[in-house]
Amino acid sequence: MEAYFDNAATTAVFPEVRELMMKLMGEDYGNPSSLHGKGVQAEKYIKEATAIISAQLKCKERELVFTSGGTESNNLAIIGAALAHRRQGKHIISTTIEHASVLATLEFLKKEGFEITLIDVDSDGILKLDELKAALREDTILVSTMYVNNEIGSIQPIQEISRIIKAHNPECLYHVDAVQAFGKLTFSPKKLGVDLMSISGHKIHGPKGSGALYVREKVLLRPIIYGGGQQNNMRSGTENVPGIAGMGLAAKLIYTGIDEKMEYVKSLRDALVGKLTGIEGVYSNTKEAPHIASISFTGVRSEVMLHALEDKGIYVSAGSACSSNKPHVSSVLKSIGLEADRLESTLRFSFCETNTMEEVDYAVEVINELLPMLRRYVRH
Amino acid sequence: MEAYFDNAATTAVFPEVRELMMKLMGEDYGNPSSLHGKGVQAEKYIKEATAIISAQLKCKERELVFTSGGTESNNLAIIGAALAHRRQGKHIISTTIEHASVLATLEFLKKEGFEITLIDVDSDGILKLDELKAALREDTILVSTMYVNNEIGSIQPIQEISRIIKAHNPECLYHVDAVQAFGKLTFSPKKLGVDLMSISGHKIHGPKGSGALYVREKVLLRPIIYGGGQQNNMRSGTENVPGIAGMGLAAKLIYTGIDEKMEYVKSLRDALVGKLTGIEGVYSNTKEAPHIASISFTGVRSEVMLHALEDKGIYVSAGSACSSNKPHVSSVLKSIGLEADRLESTLRFSFCETNTMEEVDYAVEVINELLPMLRRYVRH
Repeated sequence: MEAYFDNAATTAVFPEVRELMMKLMGEDYGNPSSLHGKGVQAEKYIKEATAIISAQLKCKERELVFTSGGTESNNLAIIGAALAHRRQGKHIISTTIEHASVLATLEFLKKEGFEITLIDVDSDGILKLDELKAALREDTILVSTMYVNNEIGSIQPIQEISRIIKAHNPECLYHVDAVQAFGKLTFSPKKLGVDLMSISGHKIHGPKGSGALYVREKVLLRPIIYGGGQQNNMRSGTENVPGIAGMGLAAKLIYTGIDEKMEYVKSLRDALVGKLTGIEGVYSNTKEAPHIASISFTGVRSEVMLHALEDKGIYVSAGSACSSNKPHVSSVLKSIGLEADRLESTLRFSFCETNTMEEVDYAVEVINELLPMLRRYVRH
Repeated sequence: MEAYFDNAATTAVFPEVRELMMKLMGEDYGNPSSLHGKGVQAEKYIKEATAIISAQLKCKERELVFTSGGTESNNLAIIGAALAHRRQGKHIISTTIEHASVLATLEFLKKEGFEITLIDVDSDGILKLDELKAALREDTILVSTMYVNNEIGSIQPIQEISRIIKAHNPECLYHVDAVQAFGKLTFSPKKLGVDLMSISGHKIHGPKGSGALYVREKVLLRPIIYGGGQQNNMRSGTENVPGIAGMGLAAKLIYTGIDEKMEYVKSLRDALVGKLTGIEGVYSNTKEAPHIASISFTGVRSEVMLHALEDKGIYVSAGSACSSNKPHVSSVLKSIGLEADRLESTLRFSFCETNTMEEVDYAVEVINELLPMLRRYVRH
């Protein structure tokens, strides 16, 4: 039996999306910048995707910029806002549990003369609002936080954070990395009070190499990739039409019946967490998001358990899969205060709507078999 | 009949490439950063593509960075080199006939305090080597030129340019935008004396959203996209595995029998140019590259002719297709000294190996019919 529980790392592309992409690579393969019919046709596919995603996010079509993925979206939002507003100030606030594509981008800006404040989170993985209030300064130009954390599934109170920021200074921009929220929760950046929001295609059964950034109307950004002026000059380069169209269709498909889907996903997640935490020395660090379970198997290092599970066809993550093969102690788990024995023994199980209860039962059974053995033999 | 003569804008994806990508989106869809087997498998596909392209370019595997396309490659090369070497100097040299993704990137750097010199080209579209020699300064850190021009097909003497640069200062970097050369000519950046070289997937029957940058060993670059540290920290973000693998396979397929293919492509091109220039008031601005014909139909504006041809199923470009739908007077054609009547009446026909002589004959026939009529009725 195979059980892929690594859907927060990446997902299988929907068959309908693959079919559409095949068509766009073989038949309707025009360059949207071409003036002739094949170009116009290609542009139509982009417009369709734009219509789907903007309807879902309840935003204007011109507020979307397509990128090569969540990482580029985060870079465009943060570097783009920083460079466009550096005359107003050079202070940026974020949190200790952000994705590498936010933290590394802030590191770069630090070297360029910006000042970065990282806010702590509490044991629930929620950023401390008091600390945020205290950190906001007159020269703060940008706050960037996640929506759903990719390792434990904590959900930030976006609207409340926005209110705090805007009460302090309506000009201060708020960027939200919604990569793990899109296709799971239903939300609108405008309603949440967000100025910039990153989403990704390959986390929602869309293609890798696709992503988008919501840029609220009138928000000034500097591009990070220059050229032919595509996408209103915000992101040059021949649009990845199959990728964009694929992401659009994936969004449409994933949001059809989303409530039932997420209820089902949550039931799988809860069953796994319930059954595993019945085992001695197994603890859950799982928070609200329906699709993510974070489980510590004390006494067994996470990589050992990961590979033992892999041998049985069960695919999970140690921390997140977003940091290029480097197994390292998770700063997210540290941030919520886990002790050493749990820090180094934690696995992430992440679900999608094609997972089944049989797979969950299989995983529980396998873990029940493996755990005592691994604990006995793999002492460290 | 349909004749797609806009292959320099974008190409249909090879069926084999589409098939491979289908597999990588449906079955082998892992995230290369995942530690388990599905991640390892995904990484293998990237390694295969790397092996193919590095063998073709006769470079080391670690000298390749995959990007989202030619535009990102040019941005990474130019911004990356400029930021990494700004302490050595702030002067950059390029030419007047570069692609927008080079010229607009240089515009950005100008605003950031860099000094840009653009060298002229002669009537053959070849940069003036004397001007290059004269322009090189002690604080010149980078020279960027095209290999094959996208509008007229002129081929720069890369090796000679490199010798001039390196004789002046071996530390000065040389970047070559080889997007229109890759898959047409056979070359090695190392042998040519090039430090940075951009290539693209969708110009060689690979997928849109794929590209690469050759970065000579020991050449220092600053990334432009930060995050999980993928690709040796040079380009973060989950790798677009289907895109990368697709580009690798496309490179393998296009270079199989490349000499015969390009001879055939050139024969189509030459036939078209020969037959069309037999018509009164039709002139060729075509240079060496086998796949590009630039033809001026004096007395008819290029957009008018483009749409008239489109009605007959013939797809061509006015200038290049890389500038987001904005019909404008081509700076390339201006640079080689075309007069107004040819400037505004030029079309680009660009070929690939699946085009046929029947298509060429059809186009010639249609143009012979259309031209007198258009000249008569569409006076301006």
